[in-house]
Amino acid sequence: MEQIDTLKNGYKIIQDSERFQFGIDAILLADFAASEIREGNSIVDLGTGTGIIPLLMEKTCKQYSKVQFTGLEVQEASANMAARSVSLNELENRIKIVHGDLTNVDGHKDENQTPLFPRHSFSIVTCNPPYMIDEHGRSNSLDALTIARHEVLCTLEDVVAAADYLLAPHGKFFMIHRPFRLPEIFEALSKHKLEPKRMRLIHPFANKEPNMVMIEARKNAKRRLTIEPPLAVRNDDGEYTAEIRQIYGD
Amino acid sequence: MEQIDTLKNGYKIIQDSERFQFGIDAILLADFAASEIREGNSIVDLGTGTGIIPLLMEKTCKQYSKVQFTGLEVQEASANMAARSVSLNELENRIKIVHGDLTNVDGHKDENQTPLFPRHSFSIVTCNPPYMIDEHGRSNSLDALTIARHEVLCTLEDVVAAADYLLAPHGKFFMIHRPFRLPEIFEALSKHKLEPKRMRLIHPFANKEPNMVMIEARKNAKRRLTIEPPLAVRNDDGEYTAEIRQIYGD
Repeated sequence: MEQIDTLKNGYKIIQDSERFQFGIDAILLADFAASEIREGNSIVDLGTGTGIIPLLMEKTCKQYSKVQFTGLEVQEASANMAARSVSLNELENRIKIVHGDLTNVDGHKDENQTPLFPRHSFSIVTCNPPYMIDEHGRSNSLDALTIARHEVLCTLEDVVAAADYLLAPHGKFFMIHRPFRLPEIFEALSKHKLEPKRMRLIHPFANKEPNMVMIEARKNAKRRLTIEPPLAVRNDDGEYTAEIRQIYGD
Repeated sequence: MEQIDTLKNGYKIIQDSERFQFGIDAILLADFAASEIREGNSIVDLGTGTGIIPLLMEKTCKQYSKVQFTGLEVQEASANMAARSVSLNELENRIKIVHGDLTNVDGHKDENQTPLFPRHSFSIVTCNPPYMIDEHGRSNSLDALTIARHEVLCTLEDVVAAADYLLAPHGKFFMIHRPFRLPEIFEALSKHKLEPKRMRLIHPFANKEPNMVMIEARKNAKRRLTIEPPLAVRNDDGEYTAEIRQIYGD
């Protein structure tokens, strides 16, 4: 069942309670990446789902009139819904939703080999990919939720390879993922000459293990990683921390 | 000038104020690794310096009568001093200090090719290596402090290669290092089939960037990293945190 929600930034977003609804990870990634957007940048969000990440980043970058956002989504129903959210906010001139497969950005799977996007055509790539490795106890169903959460239609390697293809020479890649896959993430990035430059771990509580990690990698950059202070989601009393409230726009 | 200090665990240690003196990193690494020692394990500490890491771990593992420690040190004066510390505590039957070069554990640099240790002969390898890449603004001097802090006599890759050579098939490697080198650390470990399994970031204060990282890697292990809760060294008031005091043995 579709519903129209209002984001803290004032934009409307269409979500379907039976499909994937955006979570805190999308909000945190949009915030992590938005601070690095500069005037004139072209940004693509891979597996954009509801379009939440471009919708949040667009608002943050309102002062940059020449920034362009693209959201790529493989599920047609989701892409259609995201496009309608863009229209609802009259952002068609700022955000373009494209229905397509991130494992085929260069068009190599098609008969006519037409790329979805030209090589090296974006300054920034963002992605909140499926976290779970395919074998991690999933059902055999191919519903929208399974596709969003499990590596059914794309793997970590596919995501990084797409970023590599899409990014301009010194472009930036922003991803949120699970910390337990960090060695594999660094390996995939390294293979594609995307150097991890900035990383932040997200902890449900300050003194608990992190359950998410945000990474900024740059194409062909010099080696040197900055690990930022930990981001705690909740205080001991269970309430959101001041920083989370600030990111949420409360 | 040599002096004899008493550790919190009651052992004596000889240090030379003009040479390298152990720091909090050695204490934290010894604690991080000691919890993984099992009866019958043989442990080698690479670049042992004063011998602080074996001296701390030996006390923690007092209940295991068959555990054996080795400290390898390339600087003859340091190795000699560490051996005298071992004698001072009458631990010669538990800790052996070896003067030798970790870049030559297999003996390939010697004319007669005699290995320092047989291949795959240890259950655990620990190392608190020099953190700084050689080019990072060091003087040209080759004093004891420079050797301990800069990659003059051994690189990260050398340390990991030595661990690979020394470790038994499912052996464990424990290292403390600087977070800014994490991608490089993972790459070196991966190259030597040492899978990062456990990691902990150390922050001078809870809300500051980490300045040290401890990693446990296991030979030929399955991929899955646990990132532990952050370890803060000091509270906002500048005093050691409860956990640090507990590790120090206060």
